[in-house]
Amino acid sequence: MSVTTYTVTGMTCGHCVSSVKEEVGEVAGVTGVEVDLETGRVEVSGDAPEDAAVRAAIEEAGYQVASA
Amino acid sequence: MSVTTYTVTGMTCGHCVSSVKEEVGEVAGVTGVEVDLETGRVEVSGDAPEDAAVRAAIEEAGYQVASA
Repeated sequence: MSVTTYTVTGMTCGHCVSSVKEEVGEVAGVTGVEVDLETGRVEVSGDAPEDAAVRAAIEEAGYQVASA
Repeated sequence: MSVTTYTVTGMTCGHCVSSVKEEVGEVAGVTGVEVDLETGRVEVSGDAPEDAAVRAAIEEAGYQVASA
């Protein structure tokens, strides 16, 4: 299992957190998504999900990935 | 038809706007809800919906009514 941490900007409330969790949770291989609203940390765990796919999902939800 | 304006605090993004629109839209007599995220203005139009019910709906969505 792998855990990758992303820093996401633009999330302002619990609805934003839900959106990110939902989109990232649909990426193939992802088994868990933890989001800290205050820091923007998004921890993605799973069976080596594709980095590009996770980033695309975050952007699809409407947010920006600041760094990996 | 009546139009009543409320000032709502705590909305931070488009998801918040949607939540308020959805909850207030379910109040008996409400026919339209316009929300301005930046100012927090919520304009409720309809067939004289009950003021207390509109305020309760806003609070149920998770936000505060600052003034009428």
